Amino acid sequence: MIVILKPEAPEALVKDIVSHIESIGLQAHLSRGQFRTIIGVVGEEEKINPEQLKSLTGVEQVVPIMKPYKLASREFHKEDSVFEIPCPISGSVKIGGPHCLAIAGPCAAEDEEMVHQLAREVVAAGATVLRGGAYKPRTSPYTFQGHGEEALKWLRDAGKANNMPVITEVMDTRHVQVIEQYTDIFQIGARNMQNFNLLFEVGKTRKPVVLKRGLAGSISEWLMSAEYVLSQGNRRVILCERGIKTFETSLRYTLDLSAVPVAKSLSHLPVIVDPSHAAGDRQYVPALARAAIAAGADGFMIECHDCPSKAMCDGPQALLPDTFTHLMKDLTNIASVLGRKFSTTPKP
Amino acid sequence: MIVILKPEAPEALVKDIVSHIESIGLQAHLSRGQFRTIIGVVGEEEKINPEQLKSLTGVEQVVPIMKPYKLASREFHKEDSVFEIPCPISGSVKIGGPHCLAIAGPCAAEDEEMVHQLAREVVAAGATVLRGGAYKPRTSPYTFQGHGEEALKWLRDAGKANNMPVITEVMDTRHVQVIEQYTDIFQIGARNMQNFNLLFEVGKTRKPVVLKRGLAGSISEWLMSAEYVLSQGNRRVILCERGIKTFETSLRYTLDLSAVPVAKSLSHLPVIVDPSHAAGDRQYVPALARAAIAAGADGFMIECHDCPSKAMCDGPQALLPDTFTHLMKDLTNIASVLGRKFSTTPKP
Amino acid sequence: MIVILKPEAPEALVKDIVSHIESIGLQAHLSRGQFRTIIGVVGEEEKINPEQLKSLTGVEQVVPIMKPYKLASREFHKEDSVFEIPCPISGSVKIGGPHCLAIAGPCAAEDEEMVHQLAREVVAAGATVLRGGAYKPRTSPYTFQGHGEEALKWLRDAGKANNMPVITEVMDTRHVQVIEQYTDIFQIGARNMQNFNLLFEVGKTRKPVVLKRGLAGSISEWLMSAEYVLSQGNRRVILCERGIKTFETSLRYTLDLSAVPVAKSLSHLPVIVDPSHAAGDRQYVPALARAAIAAGADGFMIECHDCPSKAMCDGPQALLPDTFTHLMKDLTNIASVLGRKFSTTPKP
Amino acid sequence: MIVILKPEAPEALVKDIVSHIESIGLQAHLSRGQFRTIIGVVGEEEKINPEQLKSLTGVEQVVPIMKPYKLASREFHKEDSVFEIPCPISGSVKIGGPHCLAIAGPCAAEDEEMVHQLAREVVAAGATVLRGGAYKPRTSPYTFQGHGEEALKWLRDAGKANNMPVITEVMDTRHVQVIEQYTDIFQIGARNMQNFNLLFEVGKTRKPVVLKRGLAGSISEWLMSAEYVLSQGNRRVILCERGIKTFETSLRYTLDLSAVPVAKSLSHLPVIVDPSHAAGDRQYVPALARAAIAAGADGFMIECHDCPSKAMCDGPQALLPDTFTHLMKDLTNIASVLGRKFSTTPKP
Repeated sequence: MIVILKPEAPEALVKDIVSHIESIGLQAHLSRGQFRTIIGVVGEEEKINPEQLKSLTGVEQVVPIMKPYKLASREFHKEDSVFEIPCPISGSVKIGGPHCLAIAGPCAAEDEEMVHQLAREVVAAGATVLRGGAYKPRTSPYTFQGHGEEALKWLRDAGKANNMPVITEVMDTRHVQVIEQYTDIFQIGARNMQNFNLLFEVGKTRKPVVLKRGLAGSISEWLMSAEYVLSQGNRRVILCERGIKTFETSLRYTLDLSAVPVAKSLSHLPVIVDPSHAAGDRQYVPALARAAIAAGADGFMIECHDCPSKAMCDGPQALLPDTFTHLMKDLTNIASVLGRKFSTTPKP
Repeated sequence: MIVILKPEAPEALVKDIVSHIESIGLQAHLSRGQFRTIIGVVGEEEKINPEQLKSLTGVEQVVPIMKPYKLASREFHKEDSVFEIPCPISGSVKIGGPHCLAIAGPCAAEDEEMVHQLAREVVAAGATVLRGGAYKPRTSPYTFQGHGEEALKWLRDAGKANNMPVITEVMDTRHVQVIEQYTDIFQIGARNMQNFNLLFEVGKTRKPVVLKRGLAGSISEWLMSAEYVLSQGNRRVILCERGIKTFETSLRYTLDLSAVPVAKSLSHLPVIVDPSHAAGDRQYVPALARAAIAAGADGFMIECHDCPSKAMCDGPQALLPDTFTHLMKDLTNIASVLGRKFSTTPKP
Repeated sequence: MIVILKPEAPEALVKDIVSHIESIGLQAHLSRGQFRTIIGVVGEEEKINPEQLKSLTGVEQVVPIMKPYKLASREFHKEDSVFEIPCPISGSVKIGGPHCLAIAGPCAAEDEEMVHQLAREVVAAGATVLRGGAYKPRTSPYTFQGHGEEALKWLRDAGKANNMPVITEVMDTRHVQVIEQYTDIFQIGARNMQNFNLLFEVGKTRKPVVLKRGLAGSISEWLMSAEYVLSQGNRRVILCERGIKTFETSLRYTLDLSAVPVAKSLSHLPVIVDPSHAAGDRQYVPALARAAIAAGADGFMIECHDCPSKAMCDGPQALLPDTFTHLMKDLTNIASVLGRKFSTTPKP
Repeated sequence: MIVILKPEAPEALVKDIVSHIESIGLQAHLSRGQFRTIIGVVGEEEKINPEQLKSLTGVEQVVPIMKPYKLASREFHKEDSVFEIPCPISGSVKIGGPHCLAIAGPCAAEDEEMVHQLAREVVAAGATVLRGGAYKPRTSPYTFQGHGEEALKWLRDAGKANNMPVITEVMDTRHVQVIEQYTDIFQIGARNMQNFNLLFEVGKTRKPVVLKRGLAGSISEWLMSAEYVLSQGNRRVILCERGIKTFETSLRYTLDLSAVPVAKSLSHLPVIVDPSHAAGDRQYVPALARAAIAAGADGFMIECHDCPSKAMCDGPQALLPDTFTHLMKDLTNIASVLGRKFSTTPKP
């Protein structure tokens, strides 16, 4: 940590800060320049509350040196994390390192038949994990909010029928238990990236967590949210970029693909991309999915629907299974340019 | 709702859309231009799912005419809402219309004595509602997370001692009940603006709710979140602008003061401003507070601390009670230029 | 300047950097922490190109200590700058320190009569400087681009008739000379905040310059652009906040009123606000203008028009002279709460 | 164009608008809903100034139907534009349709030898166009501003020696002529995207123009700027995405790769990507370049340097020629997944 004082900071302040630093067992290095004095803190900087130092009159800036996250950081875990996710019937799929993961399915689990139908279609195209919403975060209180536990059952059954792990969103600390019973991966949505109590709760389970980046979440805040989960002992966190809010309104959000290599350089955790929610328009999903894999993403999450104009939510962004099948071929080829491979469904 | 077709949209699509519109009891008005056909929907547009129309190949754009919120909208409630908030001993304070509300107190309730001390100081300066955090949303899992129920008791007691209603943040659906017992106003923090289950839960209570705007929340989404609370029968929602994320990093967030007149023109609900969290630096809090009242805000929420460099959180933004006292005078004078008055604490 | 090395940086790099620093006459202070080495540079840090240091493999971050601007900085000029702007007939108006400046007039100078008519109306309401566009930056090449030199004459004559200095926008280095002949203040528009050659050219004149903040201009970049003008010897730069691009689309831009106290704390230059362009809608101009003065702005720039629905550009944001007259009273009262006064037109 | 009236709009306003529309030879279609009246304008909507309609009291919103750009629009030019750019000795390179273009070279042309050396290296790696700055837009007035005309000569000579067309930035209307003599492609930098006079000037030449997207430029505004060039008869405009300003600060800008498919769907013009300026850090350039080509970009512009830590500007983002050589192979392979090919240098 480096403490930069204002030009007019009195000598007494310098002494106070130095003795405060030393009183907690750290060392203070003074650098007196022409205009300002700078105090370097040597030792475990997490012992100091930077806000308290910044609150002192005469302190201009406090520059942390260490990253605020630890377990999520590549400094403490040099190698890429590789996770195995067990399939419901037999075998498992991998993500991380050379392994890419293809997650696909409907936005919402609308009824039993559609879930089974789509699961068959996406597994045939090469997806290995089935997505589907049971509890839906909707902007309006008057719209469809998901079929809840019933939908969880449809998803579990369709997962079993195709040997696909299932991922679904959890929005409420009170739902963690019931969702845990039916699904294989928790999804934390963008709007809940900083729902800290929810992060603690999924951190206490031992199921993998896909943590979407918030619409205003900096990469550093996103990794801090991952740290919430990791701090509870759950090591399988998968980061998911899905677009941020910017001034550009031609698509729903601005997909920040630089977040892929940046997050991967700061963290050992796998990073996937959800081009469907970013675009909000199926016309742009294939280009963004290709770009995501080319940027080094460890997989993707894509929404499909057999009849988008009847979809209960997010129809405009859903791919037809046919388009998805073609896209999956391109993605496989691009991955292979980078020396990577999509995990395949283990034959039961 | 207006449906704009692509230039190449076939006649069959036009017919399909028109008959769909008529089949649900609405009217379709066709406008055939040189390049495009436009279909106007006349009737209760909420009967139509715009996403389904947008999912059709050949549809370029769907423009809604009605606002997506109703109870929050000024169209359905022309006059400013004025709320009375009962004080713990006697009387009440008002917000809305000509009445402004001054909310002040510490970021976190750190211990019993500091809460009582600060309550006395802010009430002496002219604040009428006491703020204080018991459950704190913190970016890092390793930092102080609030004193929980104990802190709620300190706040309630300090509120009673000064006849001040108390406001505190609720972060988890599981905490709504306990917080309801001790406090007078729920605060929904910026990170939970779209925690829809939490909004439903506070909507089921009958205590006022201060709903902070999310860091990436558009004004329209903010009003939709208010609608979540209102839709459950709780009519006392107070909107609170507290800064949004932009490219500018000189302060923690960019306080969007245009949100005050815009939200007030779209909605009848009172709008207050939290300059402390927006600035993150006490040096700028007074200027932003003055600007907020001049922009027409119905009040403010400001953090104070007797010794910011010992504060357990957000010390850099806390005002000394003395500064707050001076500021309160300026704010009162600016309010009076606009023909408005701050509510005062009823004498018990 | 502080150079933070990566954990894996070799000792040889440390030595190289230290000897580079010493070779240009500066001192290097080493701080070796548990994980990283930090090198503090003591001396005139502008002698070092931080990009070259950052280009070295093994350097993680380079933190400048000094501000990149000098002449614009409050560190080198502690007191508020106060500028006198001569009026065409007699006397002058002041801006800075306790003096606020009211600038008003049409968006574009449309014809001779309207310019004269509006000048009379805004001066009657209390404005002291006349604004009006002769060269208009328009998003579309097919729309009205301004009446050029003819409009400059109308403005000069109307300015003389009312003893008002005139401000107009300059967009092209080739126009600096002709505009200088006719007007008293150059305006650099938001889109040209980083048109560096244009900044140099107006810096070579001795007429005051109103420098609008770019739509994506950070406060620091804005002050660097002011430095371009100042570096050529023209000391009368007035900063003008007029809204930035953010995700919020309810108004044309997001007016960043925190930029007022922030820029004023970093710089001695006066800061004014243009609420008209920020809002793009006259309904919100008065609230934003009041907030600007309450935030400490040294004045404003507002567009007026006698018949907005016939305006050749920006009609929706133009105030009727009558509304402006009422607003001016509020602004005067708010300024006086802050101990400030609007400059008045000297009687010829 | 659709005009949406406020609920309280009087009947007289409806009549006024309708007769105004009809008076200029267009048709008005009325749709009277339960709450609002909507007026559709049928005919050449560019005859109407939407701002004037929006200025009328009682008008809530004016929704344009037509895009504001024409020559840049895919509606008026269905097929991808393919441009041929003549090489200085013989033959030409192509961009657009199936042809991708690789542009590389130093940020600034620092001296004659380095320009020749880098030109040889990038052409060997597969680049076909040489970039290099002679006039540099710098944030600070105190830093290196480019070697001007001398640098233009170095670039021209190095281009001739390797049969590479040369691209360089133009920042000032006064420099268009001299730059035109020495180079083959004009580059308009991000800060000048809305320097409208400069756009007109390069539009009057007959050399291709690479138009970078501004840091706050919406895709629609970017296409309007292209329209400025096209409107003067210069049809060879190449759009270049290079990052926008957002709240995310881990890299210099946020590269908006969705702009590639979006701009290509709205326009027939080729779209390239500059990952160097977006990232500001060479570590991330390869991932972003791969993503750009995978997203469908028609080429790229990348900065290289033989010794980044001695570079006069932007060293941290410069690739070593060796890294560029490897990257070029990946890019060629990804392009071929999409059925595309990089243009190669014609043998003289």
